[in-house]
Amino acid sequence: MSSPVTPSTTSAAIAAAVRESSPLVQYLTNFVSMDIAANVLNAVGASPAMVHDAHESGEFARIASAVGINIGTPSPSWVDGMLAAAEAAHDVGTPWVLDPVAVGATAYRRDIVARLVEHSPTVIRGNASEILALATSQAGGRGVDSVATSSDAMDGAAALARELSTVVVVTGVEDVVSDGTRTAVVHGGHHFMPMVTALGCSATALVAACCAVEDDAFEASIAAMAMLAAAGERAGARSAGPGSFRVGLIDELSLLDDTRLASVRVDRS
Amino acid sequence: MSSPVTPSTTSAAIAAAVRESSPLVQYLTNFVSMDIAANVLNAVGASPAMVHDAHESGEFARIASAVGINIGTPSPSWVDGMLAAAEAAHDVGTPWVLDPVAVGATAYRRDIVARLVEHSPTVIRGNASEILALATSQAGGRGVDSVATSSDAMDGAAALARELSTVVVVTGVEDVVSDGTRTAVVHGGHHFMPMVTALGCSATALVAACCAVEDDAFEASIAAMAMLAAAGERAGARSAGPGSFRVGLIDELSLLDDTRLASVRVDRS
Amino acid sequence: MSSPVTPSTTSAAIAAAVRESSPLVQYLTNFVSMDIAANVLNAVGASPAMVHDAHESGEFARIASAVGINIGTPSPSWVDGMLAAAEAAHDVGTPWVLDPVAVGATAYRRDIVARLVEHSPTVIRGNASEILALATSQAGGRGVDSVATSSDAMDGAAALARELSTVVVVTGVEDVVSDGTRTAVVHGGHHFMPMVTALGCSATALVAACCAVEDDAFEASIAAMAMLAAAGERAGARSAGPGSFRVGLIDELSLLDDTRLASVRVDRS
Repeated sequence: MSSPVTPSTTSAAIAAAVRESSPLVQYLTNFVSMDIAANVLNAVGASPAMVHDAHESGEFARIASAVGINIGTPSPSWVDGMLAAAEAAHDVGTPWVLDPVAVGATAYRRDIVARLVEHSPTVIRGNASEILALATSQAGGRGVDSVATSSDAMDGAAALARELSTVVVVTGVEDVVSDGTRTAVVHGGHHFMPMVTALGCSATALVAACCAVEDDAFEASIAAMAMLAAAGERAGARSAGPGSFRVGLIDELSLLDDTRLASVRVDRS
Repeated sequence: MSSPVTPSTTSAAIAAAVRESSPLVQYLTNFVSMDIAANVLNAVGASPAMVHDAHESGEFARIASAVGINIGTPSPSWVDGMLAAAEAAHDVGTPWVLDPVAVGATAYRRDIVARLVEHSPTVIRGNASEILALATSQAGGRGVDSVATSSDAMDGAAALARELSTVVVVTGVEDVVSDGTRTAVVHGGHHFMPMVTALGCSATALVAACCAVEDDAFEASIAAMAMLAAAGERAGARSAGPGSFRVGLIDELSLLDDTRLASVRVDRS
Repeated sequence: MSSPVTPSTTSAAIAAAVRESSPLVQYLTNFVSMDIAANVLNAVGASPAMVHDAHESGEFARIASAVGINIGTPSPSWVDGMLAAAEAAHDVGTPWVLDPVAVGATAYRRDIVARLVEHSPTVIRGNASEILALATSQAGGRGVDSVATSSDAMDGAAALARELSTVVVVTGVEDVVSDGTRTAVVHGGHHFMPMVTALGCSATALVAACCAVEDDAFEASIAAMAMLAAAGERAGARSAGPGSFRVGLIDELSLLDDTRLASVRVDRS
């Protein structure tokens, strides 16, 4: 059941904490997203570090404030680095966020994700197809025929969150956040967002940054989505297409303030 | 002999087909071009997937609508992934486009390209130096001393196209497309284009996207070049330098319509 | 002792030489910086080549005009490529520039840098933390507690330059260049610069480009810093945030002229 609109005061506080403490976010991510994800982290005041190889990824995860692991362009040596980072993060209690890019597309990706989830991700962030692919594989292999509706995504997110004792974020036209008990839908953003490559990967990075400063990963995830929604809405209003939108989005992320964040509509149930 | 100017109605139809069917374009490309190539594909409505490792590149090539293979930053494991993708694409009849970046620069690159062309690329896209290096190596090793003139490039493209039974695209101030029998020269673009890194790699990605929706790879290649020419011309008119040009180019690619594409001058012979 | 302000006429001449001779700059760099570093090199008229694997990096370093080596996202095969390039560059007298990203962060990075410096880098470019980490490790392992002051950085740079017979560049609010005897401080830039990912890596690329056309690596390094300072100042004046700043910086780098470069304040001592 949906509560009345809740102003995102918590989100504003989390964004301010990121800006003030500049958490060190280690992000093992795909080659496509490296540039934009690092710039998104910088824009909100976090400190990105793309440390991926197993020779140092575990050592670094022990000093990082949060870790993101994105399987977008996997290969064996990268997977070794991801597993080392996930294991170290879990060991020392560093929050870590999994982005299971295109997990349904190949057997290789399904196997990688299966090995990573053993290290108990704090949050899993994906699009509806990815989350439903995971949710159904966890539930015993039902096929994923349609990924269209928001309510499918909400059910899948909640089921997966309960199954893995994690927080699940499904990004799309609306963003859904669930910890298995609580669910929130974050509104806003802009239709140019899916036309910009690796904004999903950047969302994952923002979730990690927020988890670094907020123990409640459910609220941290909502804050990350609210940051993107607020910045995206403002950037969209002054962009001619996805090229200028991307530039404006980075600008707007650096200009976020409490008022803008509090204007994001979040429905909680 | 040059025909009168032909309006690019076919190109407009191909661009519309890309926009409507959103082909899945698997692009194994270099680290420099990942971001811009993916954004260029998104801007025209295609769906990019940078799946490169041999553990999944062949499997993925079987479900992709088209494949691009760019050797810009090669290493042994990447070459394995490229060969697996090329072989799978050829097996199932998926069109695939080769971008032989700097093939003349090192022995390693010449060897990689020699192995890739055994899998019969649908199109080869390069600059004049690269195409002439390939054309002369195929013809028996004559030196490449000058790559300057457009007519050299045209002769080299036609010879290479006949030799390998493929379509050859030479990008430059004017873009030349040849299938060994037919030749087209696409005019337009802007002098900022060569100042933006990896626009050539992005051109290769666009050729792949167009080949996904059009069986005649000669017409598909012309359409891809016309898209860049039309968008580049418009972006150039409102840019202060290569930074803003790149942003405007992505915007303009997303705004292409039949009228703009039909205004591109294409000389056929 | 500080001399009066020196107009950067030498820097202007070096920038012009880069523009006119378009040196081929081989840059083995991290995944985050590939795009922006290549675009920065293009903008000033240099010709970037990201050739990294040991199968060709040494061969290519023998034909490159200058080489940059940046350890930002290291892994064993990349380190092999870096060592091969550094060795070849040193062999044939090609200037090469080392960027020891986060050298203090992990044992792996310290070891990589130790092996690279054996090949006598022409210039080392880092931030204050990196340079002080190197300076103190060379001096016998004193701890690095504070990296705050410009004078610490100046002392560290000079000491490291003498120890390794190299030129050291420390980038920050002000940029310090030292060859152990001469020191210069370059003023300018903009507070958006540290918010743009991989501008430090791009600075390294510019130093390499300038070393390709100027034998005095001290003057070449000053010129590279002056180019960034001049372009950054102008870009900052018309940017809303780090997104538009990055775009403007590339534009301004392509528009640099003698007047703008000569306006950069350089204090020499």
